[in-house]
Amino acid sequence: MVIWKLRQGADRRIRSGHPWIFSNELSTSPKGIGQGAFVELQDYRGQFLARGYGNPHSLIAFRAVSFDVNDRNPLGFEALVKKIISSWRLRRETGFRGSFRLCFGESDFLPGLVLDYYLVEQNGIKGQVFAAQFVTAGLDLALKSSEDFFKLLSKWAKEQGLSEYDWEQTAVVIRNDVNIRKLEGLEVVSPLTLKLISGMDLHQIDILLNSSSDEGIVRMRCDLAEGQKTGFFLDQTQNIFQAVQIFRNWARSHPELKGQVIKILDLCCYVGHWATQISRALKAEGFDVEVHLVDVSNSALAFAKTNTEREGATAVVHKIDVLEGLDCFQSRTFDIIIADPPAFIKSKKDIPTGTHAYMKMNSQAFRLIKKNRFVVSCSCSGLLEESEFKEAVRKAIQRNGWQARNLTRGGHAADHPTILQFPEGFYLKMVTHYTD
Amino acid sequence: MVIWKLRQGADRRIRSGHPWIFSNELSTSPKGIGQGAFVELQDYRGQFLARGYGNPHSLIAFRAVSFDVNDRNPLGFEALVKKIISSWRLRRETGFRGSFRLCFGESDFLPGLVLDYYLVEQNGIKGQVFAAQFVTAGLDLALKSSEDFFKLLSKWAKEQGLSEYDWEQTAVVIRNDVNIRKLEGLEVVSPLTLKLISGMDLHQIDILLNSSSDEGIVRMRCDLAEGQKTGFFLDQTQNIFQAVQIFRNWARSHPELKGQVIKILDLCCYVGHWATQISRALKAEGFDVEVHLVDVSNSALAFAKTNTEREGATAVVHKIDVLEGLDCFQSRTFDIIIADPPAFIKSKKDIPTGTHAYMKMNSQAFRLIKKNRFVVSCSCSGLLEESEFKEAVRKAIQRNGWQARNLTRGGHAADHPTILQFPEGFYLKMVTHYTD
Repeated sequence: MVIWKLRQGADRRIRSGHPWIFSNELSTSPKGIGQGAFVELQDYRGQFLARGYGNPHSLIAFRAVSFDVNDRNPLGFEALVKKIISSWRLRRETGFRGSFRLCFGESDFLPGLVLDYYLVEQNGIKGQVFAAQFVTAGLDLALKSSEDFFKLLSKWAKEQGLSEYDWEQTAVVIRNDVNIRKLEGLEVVSPLTLKLISGMDLHQIDILLNSSSDEGIVRMRCDLAEGQKTGFFLDQTQNIFQAVQIFRNWARSHPELKGQVIKILDLCCYVGHWATQISRALKAEGFDVEVHLVDVSNSALAFAKTNTEREGATAVVHKIDVLEGLDCFQSRTFDIIIADPPAFIKSKKDIPTGTHAYMKMNSQAFRLIKKNRFVVSCSCSGLLEESEFKEAVRKAIQRNGWQARNLTRGGHAADHPTILQFPEGFYLKMVTHYTD
Repeated sequence: MVIWKLRQGADRRIRSGHPWIFSNELSTSPKGIGQGAFVELQDYRGQFLARGYGNPHSLIAFRAVSFDVNDRNPLGFEALVKKIISSWRLRRETGFRGSFRLCFGESDFLPGLVLDYYLVEQNGIKGQVFAAQFVTAGLDLALKSSEDFFKLLSKWAKEQGLSEYDWEQTAVVIRNDVNIRKLEGLEVVSPLTLKLISGMDLHQIDILLNSSSDEGIVRMRCDLAEGQKTGFFLDQTQNIFQAVQIFRNWARSHPELKGQVIKILDLCCYVGHWATQISRALKAEGFDVEVHLVDVSNSALAFAKTNTEREGATAVVHKIDVLEGLDCFQSRTFDIIIADPPAFIKSKKDIPTGTHAYMKMNSQAFRLIKKNRFVVSCSCSGLLEESEFKEAVRKAIQRNGWQARNLTRGGHAADHPTILQFPEGFYLKMVTHYTD
């Protein structure tokens, strides 16, 4: 086993539970070992600190997978599955009944693994889909024989009552088509469907999700084989819940709007999660809803139309790049606007232009919103500080002459936990404003 | 009318909607005018910026009440009532059916006024209570004839369908017993019941609040005449809602706990809002609940016992100062712990000791929590940055050897809005951890 030692004084962060070691913190060069090899980390005196994996090609030379000296093989299948099962239980305990993020990398104590769990249904047949991203060399190596790994995971989950599906009803998609792999010296490869469910087409499938307004389940049709990210963006559960609470209460206090139409604009809608959940909530209260779905992807728009119409909304799709302008819409047209773009900031050099893009997009949102209505602004750029994001939204509000009150701010749902010793894991910000 | 001019270049912040001007930003000394006098603010060229009030005795020399040049008398009763009615409507629209903060000073565009609205019931008689704090000289002066002001407010609210109560069913309590008034050169005076509801004793009254777990109403007995703050702390609505969602889902996934007792520790419980709401939610799911209520105030503990027992909990009270130690409790005793202390940091000089106090209190909480259970940590110290608060909680987690995941973070509910141009209004932080 490879043993790496830290320089004197470089052990403070990792002793606090932060899982990363940078190459300049090691006492000797990390060169020579294989990418992703198993490594034991010690302090300068040779005292055990952690076990994990190393990568001489990455700025982050070492990632800790276990801080327990008795944990001899933390990257073995059984140890990994055990960890994921613990996260699965936590998702169940915190109320997730449908699809959810099952492993959020470092914040679920498993650096390098992003794993989404989808409960799916097609033509009356149900099943489960694991959609995984291996973002580090260590994880990529550890899960080389992925099929056996996922087989074990589905077996244990069923045995422990976490899932009702067995291996035949399980599909696995490996989504290593992410640029972040380059930082680890890994190839960016096309989406791979490792295991299918017989007779099921993952390109056009309904995933099931908790409804934000009732105890039921919402269906969202999407492409789990090749759609964006892992096919869907699961991270807005809590934020949608918070916002829908407000919209529903608002609608209830405006019975005079029945017979009219509540107009919703969902910017960068992808397959329409926000618009679908809001439509469901408002339709249940007896209101008519017209959703305007904006995205650059035709296939996303087609899914979004299907999903919102299924909840009773009238859907209008607009193939537009939000940063190119939303001049086709008149000022003060909408009752609810969602500004939830993909990450405008992907690396530090993007911060100035990305921050400006948030301001620009929100300026459009605050131009198009009616008085005494609601704009939801989100950022999933981890490199954008919450204070900077708020400042961009503040400028957008000011530009449009509003005095807007912030009614709720959001963040991560329980299936995207954060750990305080690893602030890098926090990326999702949301603010909901009322235009005065 | 007094006109004050700003120094050249000092107008940027106020043009963004921030309502404060510091004395060193004025072109001439603010001395000479009466404390709280009506002032028009202009830039160095004499261009209109805002109207509001001045105070030569305060570091914050001017606070803007209106940025509208046509708004000639923004401190007149009618203008003030109109503003509060707009906030009232927003509370109703965002779902508040019981008691709520009706005016949150600067963040509701009314600097200096904290106004809580209580829906109350005693012996089958219902009514409403306004509990106000005038924290600036300008507001103190503007509301000198308070009774007429509140009479007008209750009249308009009833006329506009926001309230069903008339003046006879309205009480008014002025809570100018706050030290912050000294910064404005104002006296700190004893609580004053300006107007009673005939036959009602405000010292022992039930306030009505939205339930966090159902569509019902929770009762909390407290002392609206002389209790802490305005008699109750209304600011945890959203945070209790978020945490209760988690606890309820967790309990549902543990039917084996039925027949046992779920043990809750509410630290600095005051009249037991957290423990009462949690008890209600868990009892409704069929679980038995034992709440341990910790506070330094005998009267608060008596109320907390009443309130939690009313929801079916077994209540045990402990008169303890949490910072003196919680040695009477054994490690790993509780399923849910609430660490929601009063502000440990009241001025900048308190930051180091106050931050340490948060760490100390949370260290106790994480000592007393069981494995795979929940600690809610809050801070209402506005001067404590969220990152510093999280760091204090992180240390507390580490000290106790946990690997804890943060499941939700909270903040302000819609009745305590914030405005982005005034970050000073943001004070309430909450994180909920699961002990791994």
